[in-house]
Amino acid sequence: MVYDLIIHNGTILTQNDTSDVIEDGMICVKGSRIVRVESSPPDTPLPVPGKGMNGDKIIDARGGIIMPGLVNTHSHLPMTLLRGLADDLPLEIWLNEHIFPAEGRHVNPDMVRTGALLGAAEMLLSGTTTCCDGYFHETHVAEAIYQTGLRAVLGQGVIDFPAPGVPDPSRNIQSAADFLKQWEDRSPLIIPSVFCHSPYTCSAKTLEAAKQLSSDQGVLFQIHVAETRNETGQCLAEHGVSPVAYLDQVGILDKNTLLIHAVHLSETDISTIAATAATVSHNPESNMKLGAGIAPVPALLEEKITVGLGTDGCASNNDLDLFGEMDTAAKIHKGRLEDPTVLDAETVIRMATINGARAIGLGDITGSLEVGKQADMVVLDTHRPHLVPLYHPESHVVYSVRGADVAYSVAAGQILVAQGKLTTLNLDEIIDDAMRIGKLIRLG
Amino acid sequence: MVYDLIIHNGTILTQNDTSDVIEDGMICVKGSRIVRVESSPPDTPLPVPGKGMNGDKIIDARGGIIMPGLVNTHSHLPMTLLRGLADDLPLEIWLNEHIFPAEGRHVNPDMVRTGALLGAAEMLLSGTTTCCDGYFHETHVAEAIYQTGLRAVLGQGVIDFPAPGVPDPSRNIQSAADFLKQWEDRSPLIIPSVFCHSPYTCSAKTLEAAKQLSSDQGVLFQIHVAETRNETGQCLAEHGVSPVAYLDQVGILDKNTLLIHAVHLSETDISTIAATAATVSHNPESNMKLGAGIAPVPALLEEKITVGLGTDGCASNNDLDLFGEMDTAAKIHKGRLEDPTVLDAETVIRMATINGARAIGLGDITGSLEVGKQADMVVLDTHRPHLVPLYHPESHVVYSVRGADVAYSVAAGQILVAQGKLTTLNLDEIIDDAMRIGKLIRLG
Repeated sequence: MVYDLIIHNGTILTQNDTSDVIEDGMICVKGSRIVRVESSPPDTPLPVPGKGMNGDKIIDARGGIIMPGLVNTHSHLPMTLLRGLADDLPLEIWLNEHIFPAEGRHVNPDMVRTGALLGAAEMLLSGTTTCCDGYFHETHVAEAIYQTGLRAVLGQGVIDFPAPGVPDPSRNIQSAADFLKQWEDRSPLIIPSVFCHSPYTCSAKTLEAAKQLSSDQGVLFQIHVAETRNETGQCLAEHGVSPVAYLDQVGILDKNTLLIHAVHLSETDISTIAATAATVSHNPESNMKLGAGIAPVPALLEEKITVGLGTDGCASNNDLDLFGEMDTAAKIHKGRLEDPTVLDAETVIRMATINGARAIGLGDITGSLEVGKQADMVVLDTHRPHLVPLYHPESHVVYSVRGADVAYSVAAGQILVAQGKLTTLNLDEIIDDAMRIGKLIRLG
Repeated sequence: MVYDLIIHNGTILTQNDTSDVIEDGMICVKGSRIVRVESSPPDTPLPVPGKGMNGDKIIDARGGIIMPGLVNTHSHLPMTLLRGLADDLPLEIWLNEHIFPAEGRHVNPDMVRTGALLGAAEMLLSGTTTCCDGYFHETHVAEAIYQTGLRAVLGQGVIDFPAPGVPDPSRNIQSAADFLKQWEDRSPLIIPSVFCHSPYTCSAKTLEAAKQLSSDQGVLFQIHVAETRNETGQCLAEHGVSPVAYLDQVGILDKNTLLIHAVHLSETDISTIAATAATVSHNPESNMKLGAGIAPVPALLEEKITVGLGTDGCASNNDLDLFGEMDTAAKIHKGRLEDPTVLDAETVIRMATINGARAIGLGDITGSLEVGKQADMVVLDTHRPHLVPLYHPESHVVYSVRGADVAYSVAAGQILVAQGKLTTLNLDEIIDDAMRIGKLIRLG
């Protein structure tokens, strides 16, 4: 058989059901799919691509680590352009005096497209090959991401306020429906979705209609929930129940619903999430930076809830590096519970790969390196002073590797980063565009 | 005047007493000292080195950030070779079944020297130009670090057990004294110190003698204290007081004492530290990873205690990247207290620079970019997708920059990293040595 891409000479962290690790492993790809995952045959020459194939399509991992491309379960990509605009402020001042005004003035198709390209560049260079995003003007995010070769679940934002591109909130469901229609068959890599902002910014009627739309179309329903203590208190005051219980009452919770943040949960909330099979996007860095708190992830995992990792938007993180996010996730729960055994490295890697994929409905497509799955994978260069010696690759991946150690990123069989450089995107042009828009935003 | 080194075309974060930020700044160095820190004169050609000087000695920061070299106030450099050997285990099993046995078998001059070089490579590449270290066979750490050009406060470990290089604990003070003598006048960059392991591994007699030695020689006294809840409980049971109160009783606390970890502190402990002017090394990633907890840093800062940042050894972090440590420090206290305003970016940068320098007794020498101080500085390349646009350099430094963004590291006026590569160390050789020793350690 002739392959389109072979990666060899690395330790493979498959993230299959038994978390197999294959030393001196080899992965062969045909089209966008993985067709072999195994030990390199000893003393046998590598299978080589047929005549006329480009020799670059054999990637030598140089003894490094080969793992699934990371899955970022929550982002607002255009907010890369608001990174560092305002920090360290009380939440209301940060939002009302900085972020919302900047969004009101500057969110337009050009900004959204540039921010999405900038975010895609950062994600690919740091090993993320799938993301789950929600914002306004999302069709322009989709156009940009479509160019990049990334895999993405994208949702047009639904909120009961005038929003960029949807000045009349009574049109918010229609705009979400239009987005689904535009992208339903456009590309296997762009998977449209519905993104309701939150239970406190959408009425029950809006929530119901949006959920109906996502159920009818069979797409993921994303929603921020129980992010802050304040939100939970308000929901109790207004509806007499917690935000999760309220969403359950409205009929939102099922296996196609992604609950983002889920920081302030009661035991009953956790049982409700488990019983409905809703999934969770854990965003530890954003939750800490905004002072929201620390989500009870060990308790969620105890109840077998599917938890993925997310970075959130760059205004509240301030990066899209999931390697750093894994490190943080592995540590903060140990610190909070004073227990070094919770969220071990293997658990955290699964959150950033296969469980992240499952959380956003792509568990059969990506998130692990197995025959038949899409060839979404990264190669880590471990010949670096902070990565030798290498005793346990899982430990290095979580505690020592950073985005800058990614040598190759491959999505759907396409090499999008090679030797640490983007292969398909013009980075200088993207950076120039970002700086141009940044100048406008700085002016106010 | 002819300079030996000029850095220009960057935003300077001086970390002087008023935290001045100089846009389009220029720093001129003569020998090891800073002689000018100012805005680049408009329309004036740059001052150029005299005839015959190497043109490389003008560094163009390309619009990036110029800041003091970072100060790591707590490391055990040889433990770079134990990075990832064991993780996610209960503290006692991790120590007694993994770390201590590996140390007992493998800590020797060759291991210590190689681990120190590996650590130095990682630190320089990630922007740290000063560290404060404690281990056994510390004279071999000192020999290695002396080669690298790093600035370092180094302490020979004192513990009341047989230790590598000091099989007879009754010789522990003598071995510390010998180390001080060996290094007292050897190099302005290697500053010897006394490092007592902890109040629970050293008797009162040992603590007193070690403190006497450090006071007589006028050197820093380093000690781990109040790291875990267990330690605090044991101290209360044994001595009837907290670890900090116990050290105070024994006469250890004064402005030349660095308290490492300081996680489990009462309000009285905090007042005692403030009253005695002892300083603190905050190691958030290690404290979380080992399940020790989260130190009450906002309360320490409230009492005007000098707090620096440290990574701890690589077996419990697992890296030496202070940019990542700044990010963590800035976030965890916000998360724990549910307050996004604590430990703002500027405060955290000072912990990693001038206040770290003060914490280890080098506040007059390094940690800020001011005329008369040593030329210890780094240049960050901000022309990267995760660092544009740039609204507030302090925000980027803490929340978005990572070690891999360091373009230049300079210590005492010497360029040790240029364009992201080590200039004086043979990295391949160091990595080969580390892998050779790692193989032995893996065999047990």
